[in-house]
Amino acid sequence: MQVIQQTFQVQYSYGIHFTEGLFNTNNTLLPDLLKKDGSLGPRKLLFVLDSGVAAAHPTLQQDIKAFSEHYSQVLTAASDFIIIPGGEEAKNDPKYLQQILDAVNDHGICRHSYLVAIGGGAILDLAGFAAAISHRGIRHIRIPTTVLSQNDSGVGVKNSVNAFQKKNFLGTFAPPFAVLNDYHFLTTLEDRDWRSGISEAIKVALIKDAAFYDEIKTNAAKLVARDKAAMDSLIFRCAELHVAHIGGKDPFEMGSSRPLDFGHWAAHKLEQLTNYELRHGEAVAIGIALDVTYSMLSGRLSEQDWENVLALLVELGFDLYVPELSQTISETNQTLCISVGLREFREHLGGQLTIMLLNKIGEGEEVHQMDDAMVKKAVALLAQRYSKAPVIH
Amino acid sequence: MQVIQQTFQVQYSYGIHFTEGLFNTNNTLLPDLLKKDGSLGPRKLLFVLDSGVAAAHPTLQQDIKAFSEHYSQVLTAASDFIIIPGGEEAKNDPKYLQQILDAVNDHGICRHSYLVAIGGGAILDLAGFAAAISHRGIRHIRIPTTVLSQNDSGVGVKNSVNAFQKKNFLGTFAPPFAVLNDYHFLTTLEDRDWRSGISEAIKVALIKDAAFYDEIKTNAAKLVARDKAAMDSLIFRCAELHVAHIGGKDPFEMGSSRPLDFGHWAAHKLEQLTNYELRHGEAVAIGIALDVTYSMLSGRLSEQDWENVLALLVELGFDLYVPELSQTISETNQTLCISVGLREFREHLGGQLTIMLLNKIGEGEEVHQMDDAMVKKAVALLAQRYSKAPVIH
Repeated sequence: MQVIQQTFQVQYSYGIHFTEGLFNTNNTLLPDLLKKDGSLGPRKLLFVLDSGVAAAHPTLQQDIKAFSEHYSQVLTAASDFIIIPGGEEAKNDPKYLQQILDAVNDHGICRHSYLVAIGGGAILDLAGFAAAISHRGIRHIRIPTTVLSQNDSGVGVKNSVNAFQKKNFLGTFAPPFAVLNDYHFLTTLEDRDWRSGISEAIKVALIKDAAFYDEIKTNAAKLVARDKAAMDSLIFRCAELHVAHIGGKDPFEMGSSRPLDFGHWAAHKLEQLTNYELRHGEAVAIGIALDVTYSMLSGRLSEQDWENVLALLVELGFDLYVPELSQTISETNQTLCISVGLREFREHLGGQLTIMLLNKIGEGEEVHQMDDAMVKKAVALLAQRYSKAPVIH
Repeated sequence: MQVIQQTFQVQYSYGIHFTEGLFNTNNTLLPDLLKKDGSLGPRKLLFVLDSGVAAAHPTLQQDIKAFSEHYSQVLTAASDFIIIPGGEEAKNDPKYLQQILDAVNDHGICRHSYLVAIGGGAILDLAGFAAAISHRGIRHIRIPTTVLSQNDSGVGVKNSVNAFQKKNFLGTFAPPFAVLNDYHFLTTLEDRDWRSGISEAIKVALIKDAAFYDEIKTNAAKLVARDKAAMDSLIFRCAELHVAHIGGKDPFEMGSSRPLDFGHWAAHKLEQLTNYELRHGEAVAIGIALDVTYSMLSGRLSEQDWENVLALLVELGFDLYVPELSQTISETNQTLCISVGLREFREHLGGQLTIMLLNKIGEGEEVHQMDDAMVKKAVALLAQRYSKAPVIH
């Protein structure tokens, strides 16, 4: 029996650039990057905008047009802007994906043109997916506008939409051409969105970098007060840790290990159970609270570290309990819905269940089993401390 | 301004295995391959079958079930088979993609499970796309059942469906887990499908391997007579040349060079213009005839080589002219529809127009411009020689 063996490597490279006022005509970051792509004439850029960002920055479209005219040798912005409501709805309703694909077709966007997405994590996930499957991959530039997308979701290689009421059921791994983090977009965020992304920084600090955790702790009051320098530093270090991890052993997650998903198994389910009323970052804060509590109850984490983490989350303004955390399948089946979510999480990832727990601040440990009874105990503990309403039984 | 630079490589590896009777319980190829994936228990396999293959091999589903029971330690076939009509319709109608995604969800197929597709190129393209976007990529095994898919489309890294009436508008690059070429499936092919895939072997021989071209020429009568040894040899060498090219400089086609698309720019448009009445391989034969004629008319290719290629295509039974080749946009706009297709082809690939022409048998040359008038002249020459009906004006 004959075999032909195929083996090859694909090299990926992109920068996460930090700037302010990306579309000021005196800011040459974008044209400078585009000039490196080897194309001769001006490149076509099709812009997808988060409607929330478009509303908060009413001159944005005008600024981009003026920018495009100023740098007309290098780039041409497509005449239409694709404006899509931000948040999870963008990933839930297939019409938004179709809207972007229609525009890719209408504007003749090819593999050497660019789909540029400006918005929060949901818009970036959606636009990234549209870019990844159009013509087998058109170039994609991400301009994240929230703390969460600038320090975590926007700097990575994943994209997705939801299907079958499951988060990220459809998607690919597709590195962007570039990520452009513009602090200016953070200035108009609601407090809720400003805070939300901080949980991902706490997450990555807890499993990888105790010094970074201490920095967040020290800066907590400043972060609450929306101090620019404190947030700049948090976003940069958090992005750096995510980038280093992704560029490490398994960028496209072919194995079972997923340390960056610390606190996420419950978070994903809570987002769904609350009909996405909870922001991702808010759900992650609760997920972290749950997993540090489980880590403490199972004897891994000291009570002191446990209290330390909960106190930081509370200081930053996160709620650490929602009634959906205690929701069970039915009156007769008292299995927690989040435990069902754990099984769905494994199915999405595939392979062996692999969950990160905490040994101490800055050091995680992967386990391959979660004890349902102990999860219940952890939930009860959080309910007792942080519930604002009678617990659902 | 700060920058975080992300750089990583992803390594891909898979085999194209040649066998006969893949689902005979004494054939250990498939379980042997699965055992290497690092999983512990039996892996879930969800099968997608080309309805034509299912009809021509009425015991296939039964055989797979028996095979799955025999190797139950290693694999479990999902209880349902997803049966989809073969041919381009599978890629045109979005309901078939949805049908596979539904099954992936219903059967809990995860990233460490397998979607196994058995069929011609269209079914493999469709199933490959479904696998690539489910859970950001579930494992995919291809079992190509036509000459074309065993020697060309099935051994590569592309998948796709059609959209906006454009071929392969949606798709990704996603290497399979393995390709299993089973000669047994070729024995039930119609003559038309047996012949169709030979054009891809001629294509790759013409641009890369004069000795292989000579072999095809020598074996032409045997190939027409459906000689197994001649076909085995043709498929193996053709697959080998494709695999070597794909594993070379640019597996995911980030640049503009696409030598394996020799003869394809007109072929894609002809498939569409004939409502996919023409098989892909048949359209490629006409596309090759057109491009060697253009190569001859533009002074690249000798008349002797030109005649040689046309004679081989005719000997194998290919038609070298269809009226759609001469079709113009309208009475008043005498631009050929295939010239419009050339622009669409560039848009799909992106970047600079790059078309392979022929200098001599075994040696291609890329050009970045096609002269519309000379294309018309080449079409007229083919019409004069090979038209079976009055030419459309």
